[in-house]
Amino acid sequence: MKKTIITNGTFLTMNPEKPVIQGCMVLEDNLITYIGEEAPQPLDTYDEQINGKDKLYMPGLVNTHCHAAMSLLRGYGDDLALQVWLQEKMWPIEGKFTAHDVKWGTQLSILEMIKGGTTTFVDMYDHMNEVAQAVEESGMRACLTRGVIGLCPPEVQDAKLKEATQFARDWHGKAGGRITTMMSPHAPYTCPPDYIEKIVQVAHDLNLPLHTHMSETAREVQDNVDQYGARPVAHLEKLGLFSRPALVAHAVHLTDDEIQVLKQHDVRVSHNPGSNLKLASGIARVPELLKQGVKVSLGTDGAASNNNLDMFEEMRLAALIHKAVSGDPVAVPAEAAIRMGTIDGAQSIWLEDVGSLQPGMKADFISLNLNQPHFFPKTNYISHVIYSASAKDVADVWVDGRMLVKNGECLTLDEEKVLYEAQRCFERLTSQ
Amino acid sequence: MKKTIITNGTFLTMNPEKPVIQGCMVLEDNLITYIGEEAPQPLDTYDEQINGKDKLYMPGLVNTHCHAAMSLLRGYGDDLALQVWLQEKMWPIEGKFTAHDVKWGTQLSILEMIKGGTTTFVDMYDHMNEVAQAVEESGMRACLTRGVIGLCPPEVQDAKLKEATQFARDWHGKAGGRITTMMSPHAPYTCPPDYIEKIVQVAHDLNLPLHTHMSETAREVQDNVDQYGARPVAHLEKLGLFSRPALVAHAVHLTDDEIQVLKQHDVRVSHNPGSNLKLASGIARVPELLKQGVKVSLGTDGAASNNNLDMFEEMRLAALIHKAVSGDPVAVPAEAAIRMGTIDGAQSIWLEDVGSLQPGMKADFISLNLNQPHFFPKTNYISHVIYSASAKDVADVWVDGRMLVKNGECLTLDEEKVLYEAQRCFERLTSQ
Repeated sequence: MKKTIITNGTFLTMNPEKPVIQGCMVLEDNLITYIGEEAPQPLDTYDEQINGKDKLYMPGLVNTHCHAAMSLLRGYGDDLALQVWLQEKMWPIEGKFTAHDVKWGTQLSILEMIKGGTTTFVDMYDHMNEVAQAVEESGMRACLTRGVIGLCPPEVQDAKLKEATQFARDWHGKAGGRITTMMSPHAPYTCPPDYIEKIVQVAHDLNLPLHTHMSETAREVQDNVDQYGARPVAHLEKLGLFSRPALVAHAVHLTDDEIQVLKQHDVRVSHNPGSNLKLASGIARVPELLKQGVKVSLGTDGAASNNNLDMFEEMRLAALIHKAVSGDPVAVPAEAAIRMGTIDGAQSIWLEDVGSLQPGMKADFISLNLNQPHFFPKTNYISHVIYSASAKDVADVWVDGRMLVKNGECLTLDEEKVLYEAQRCFERLTSQ
Repeated sequence: MKKTIITNGTFLTMNPEKPVIQGCMVLEDNLITYIGEEAPQPLDTYDEQINGKDKLYMPGLVNTHCHAAMSLLRGYGDDLALQVWLQEKMWPIEGKFTAHDVKWGTQLSILEMIKGGTTTFVDMYDHMNEVAQAVEESGMRACLTRGVIGLCPPEVQDAKLKEATQFARDWHGKAGGRITTMMSPHAPYTCPPDYIEKIVQVAHDLNLPLHTHMSETAREVQDNVDQYGARPVAHLEKLGLFSRPALVAHAVHLTDDEIQVLKQHDVRVSHNPGSNLKLASGIARVPELLKQGVKVSLGTDGAASNNNLDMFEEMRLAALIHKAVSGDPVAVPAEAAIRMGTIDGAQSIWLEDVGSLQPGMKADFISLNLNQPHFFPKTNYISHVIYSASAKDVADVWVDGRMLVKNGECLTLDEEKVLYEAQRCFERLTSQ
């Protein structure tokens, strides 16, 4: 058993009883076993001592909605409406993606996320074995799912579902428990109702949660009404999707009644402010969701619609935009935004031992370099993290007790190679 | 005369005819004298050759509304409405600010801005000699103005106006031409009409532009109507403020007619999205302003209401929020946002030889480290700058042909001392 102590640090614990601690944290293997003002003595019993002076320690960030391989399309189609962007830019080129592309696109995203303080991410994509292997190699934590689009003949639907089921079964609990899985109909508008019901049944059979895109645009909501006679929430409820633990991405266009339905079924909402703004999808009713007690977390979505994977930016957007839209300067306070990015993110994917710095929690945490102009004066560190910090302030990153990034350098992936291969993939995809 | 050539670079020129150039740029003293694919030969005639490989060069960012010394209050009062924040948190402690506090608060902000790629800023504050000296020492470019609040007895009003006039006269054109000045009534709600008229007269006498806060909150607009029978635009027009070249900050709450008035008088608008969001002031009608041909630039406002001075973030917010609010994904495209942050910013403060990389322009420019995951693949660099970059990506900064930041290190200010002194000021101010 390896025992490490960090001394002289400033810790944002996410424990509401003691949100900020100046002192020490002890790790034993992959767990936090102590945090407090005083260092448990004697110091010579520790295998490693880390001086945390001028560092701010906080839980790693949890990105609850991403399509990592889409980083290959960063900047490839901007300033377009969602449906145009999807149908004319993304889907044609994504249709050419091979396992090789998904491998390097995912590694590119993992590199960006991990160096920027994200320790756990949700990924919904294709060629998911490549994604799982990249997660395993990188040392990150992830909740993975093969998203299936059902706009295809029955035999192709069946093959996709079989593949998604196999993936979910093969990888759940793997990589030392760092990988969990879900089942995912891509969206109500890309999956016929009977196909969604089949996917829900598999989730029941495997005892897994479900993930889907929902009510991202007003047009998609109206189309659902036109096609199925119901808005997406009622439609998915009827198809049994909320009979399982469920995480829905976006949920921009919700009525008061729909918020109640989500609350009743304890459906978790992944709020993706950057992507929703960029695609002009609208502004989710986050203050109302929070008021009704719905668990809200944050996602970057894919890098093609964001265009970065900086979770500090998503926390800041979540804290900022709802104030101006509602006219209420406390609509989403800094404390709510940091919860959404950390502990509420972890709980949104049913990780109960991730997301805060407390004894018994997994050692998934990050440090920020405090000795910089935008963190002065030393006033309110939660405020500094939400309103002033960025991914580039992250110095060190640990996941499951293992250091993955040290002083800004990723220890587990070969950055130069990843950048080179990602560029090659993009050039091949766009030259065909 | 010193002659420098940068080779192998990627240049965002802000010249619409040739927005991106892969090649070389030549500086002679404080001017850009060449930019193009080929290096003017022979290379041994240059005093310095810089290899621009893996660097993206672009004009320095222009921050058109700031109160630099307010960085001392970063994180001191968050998640409050504008009037509460001003009257209960900011004004009481700002009332204690001495010249010493303004000196170190301004240096703290200059350090953050300059390292983050801002080469020019507008500052409206008190103790402006300290600000001007800090600008001179730092090597930055600035447009400075002593903002006067007229809620005081006539003799105090007169003293303030005299001081503001003296400052504007003393410093206009100083620091090798890097400093220009303006006259500034703080806001219609803090200056009686006759006081505003007096300030306008001084601007006429000194042939200087005017700067003011305007229509930042709905409440302030309503108060203006209640008190003076007119909304702020008509009120200021009547008082002659737009008879001079004028830059107004915020301009969140505007009618169609008011936009026409601003256009008729060629009034420039400093859009401050971060501050407007954070203080729940509302969302400015930027797409309409742009459509009507009003010159719109970007400002951070003071760090106490932002809470950083990252102009990349302001460009990104300007590009993102108006899309979602209007439902139009091309409401403010990346190309418009980068103009607002560079050339339109310079033109908003009447600098015609700053803001683009073209022969004859002042050598105010920055470089970004391209060799990072969030800039891959190499697709659209304007998109990458707007949707993916941050202040922390800036490597090198030049103003007026002089290198002020090299590989992230400020060459003109003592960072360690600035951080130390700013912290000391904050502690003294809050312990009294």
